Amino acid sequence: MAKKKLIVQKYGGSSVGNVDKLKNVADRVAACAKEGNNVVVVVSAMGDTTDELIELAEQINAYPSEREMDMLVSTGEQISSSLLAMALHRKDYDAISLTGLQVGILTDKYHTKAKILRIETKRIKKELNKNKIVIVAGYQGITDEMEITTLGRGGSDLSAVALAVALKADVCEIYTDVDGIYTADPRIITDARKIECIAFDEMLELAANGAQVIQTRAVEVAKKYNLPLHVRSSFEKKEGTIIMNKNANIEDPLVSGVALTEDEAKVTLCNVSDTPGIAAKVFNELANENINIDMIVQNVSRLKTTDISFTVLKSSLRNAVKKSMELAKKIGSGEVIVDEDIAKISVVGVGMKSHSGVAARCFSLLAKNKINIEMISTSEISISCVLKKSEGKKALKVLHAGFELESKKGSNKK
Amino acid sequence: MAKKKLIVQKYGGSSVGNVDKLKNVADRVAACAKEGNNVVVVVSAMGDTTDELIELAEQINAYPSEREMDMLVSTGEQISSSLLAMALHRKDYDAISLTGLQVGILTDKYHTKAKILRIETKRIKKELNKNKIVIVAGYQGITDEMEITTLGRGGSDLSAVALAVALKADVCEIYTDVDGIYTADPRIITDARKIECIAFDEMLELAANGAQVIQTRAVEVAKKYNLPLHVRSSFEKKEGTIIMNKNANIEDPLVSGVALTEDEAKVTLCNVSDTPGIAAKVFNELANENINIDMIVQNVSRLKTTDISFTVLKSSLRNAVKKSMELAKKIGSGEVIVDEDIAKISVVGVGMKSHSGVAARCFSLLAKNKINIEMISTSEISISCVLKKSEGKKALKVLHAGFELESKKGSNKK
Repeated sequence: MAKKKLIVQKYGGSSVGNVDKLKNVADRVAACAKEGNNVVVVVSAMGDTTDELIELAEQINAYPSEREMDMLVSTGEQISSSLLAMALHRKDYDAISLTGLQVGILTDKYHTKAKILRIETKRIKKELNKNKIVIVAGYQGITDEMEITTLGRGGSDLSAVALAVALKADVCEIYTDVDGIYTADPRIITDARKIECIAFDEMLELAANGAQVIQTRAVEVAKKYNLPLHVRSSFEKKEGTIIMNKNANIEDPLVSGVALTEDEAKVTLCNVSDTPGIAAKVFNELANENINIDMIVQNVSRLKTTDISFTVLKSSLRNAVKKSMELAKKIGSGEVIVDEDIAKISVVGVGMKSHSGVAARCFSLLAKNKINIEMISTSEISISCVLKKSEGKKALKVLHAGFELESKKGSNKK
Repeated sequence: MAKKKLIVQKYGGSSVGNVDKLKNVADRVAACAKEGNNVVVVVSAMGDTTDELIELAEQINAYPSEREMDMLVSTGEQISSSLLAMALHRKDYDAISLTGLQVGILTDKYHTKAKILRIETKRIKKELNKNKIVIVAGYQGITDEMEITTLGRGGSDLSAVALAVALKADVCEIYTDVDGIYTADPRIITDARKIECIAFDEMLELAANGAQVIQTRAVEVAKKYNLPLHVRSSFEKKEGTIIMNKNANIEDPLVSGVALTEDEAKVTLCNVSDTPGIAAKVFNELANENINIDMIVQNVSRLKTTDISFTVLKSSLRNAVKKSMELAKKIGSGEVIVDEDIAKISVVGVGMKSHSGVAARCFSLLAKNKINIEMISTSEISISCVLKKSEGKKALKVLHAGFELESKKGSNKK
């Protein structure tokens, strides 16, 4: 007899948004178990539960303690996982829900953004050996002092990936309300195409650049352990997108997708002295404030000074500007210029690694359409440009069409 | 310097029913801490949270597993306790919330009705030593296999009493939405009087007989460890009712209170063979079905058979009748008669112990008002009568007035 496969499935908040959706998830889980698989299910909180709990907390205390926030919001996943177990019982499947504590998802002590240190597999294996479907409350863990922690927004993805790695699962499926990863946001680009298979690195570039289907950290961990992920819809049967370790192939398209981000702002420190270590000083101090910097651009210097620009999420802007002003004073640089009226467009593809000319083509497509580029930053597999905010959507369309992402034929091939 | 007092306070669901009420509780807790006391607070779930969670479960599975129900409903107290911690932080008091698991409230494995086996005090003492107010999620515990259990309806009272015993607290205060224990239900008897001090045994009789201010098991445990309880309102400053070990005093009233129960039904097994062991057999089998029997009456036998009547909660009636029918068949008795149209009236007082004539006075008060008694059962400190349901409220008024419970003078003295 063939060995049973072990499948880890993760269902997001929108997939378990109400009683009917929860029953639908139970159907899918049951079908997977019926095929003879061992199934471990990770669930998020139902719909907007987490946001509602946060709102409740803020009514009581505008600056709630992070430790108590974790106590509070971790209940959301405990609720959905126990209800899913009941829904499976209803269908005569044996199932058991477990909290992060009961599983033994050990994390560090950083409440609301904890990192997983280790996952105990004993309890889950014991339940699987009793032929039970194991449902794990996502998003949460526990410190070695039994304090409840959570893993940050989208943390249930990370729970699923980390469990799949720890349990050496055969497959890790991420169920969500979209049916896969697209060449661009289908709400903007109506002929965007679903990608069948995408490399971890491409996904990381796309995720960091606005495609919020799956949590970035989860993809990083999957990459580290070479665990293929299958992102798919919880409402449809069809296959979604496989995220895996993919070598650039001669038949691969140059560009896999384009992404647009409108929630960043640009900060420029003018006339920074061009001496070694200044950039390190600037970004170390910002990092110490927990300000997450995205793009960084420093141009060649003129007259021994240079301008350093960076982009940050608008939610961190106030803090970033305050810190930058302090820094500017300390290092004796010029003024600090802030621009909130920006969009960032990114072109991503492992094909770029082995093929030049993509950047040039990107820039000329934008130029031909009279879209001005304010900032450029490139990596091995991506090109990001900062534009005026009003031109973001247009640029997305131009690039999606220009790289012929909607079709499978054409010049988007090496 | 005087040793700090340790005070355990319990706030029920109606006391923490919304954000404002929760802030009110924080004020009271803070005031107690400010007086220089160590404070341990036990909270119930907010308002109707528990009922809402149960309803949600029943939408998914009409017969939800008790293990998963405990996973589900225990979140209610986790939510309210973390919110109360945040409310205290807001007032600059150091506080920490703990789940039953984090405290170490060890119970047996009987989900939804677990019994407390042991309470670890290490974690709570550690937090108290850091001058923190400790907030404990009520109603819940944990088995030695890390399974979450709950203690049954009103279980937060039991959490508070058990914690007070384990921590050797100086006082255990039960905060609720009424300001104490009354001589009768004040919603029916408008001139019912608040009792200043009541004996454990009287409270047990009153609690079992409809006065649902405090959980019976909690009073039993308080009695066992001689822990005085103070039942009081969370919305008013005034003192409530002290429940304590009280010796009958010459000045005590004969009767402390009267109670009415309308949620029971009467079941009669007719013509049961009057041989030893039959009653034991009957009630053992009912107990095995977890059917909680209240009054039991067996009359002297005529012609070697007798009738056995008992009362049960209407919620258990269907099950009790089914089992009784089976039993009747097995032991060869006669028919099973069910009467749902009953009320039970109870007269309670430690004063009865040392003074006769209370029963006679009770019966004649009812007779004088043409109220027919269908069943009588007495204990050392109580007399209970089953009546027609339509006469219950009238009987309550007659007895409350007849024993002059509304006043402090008069003939209700020895």
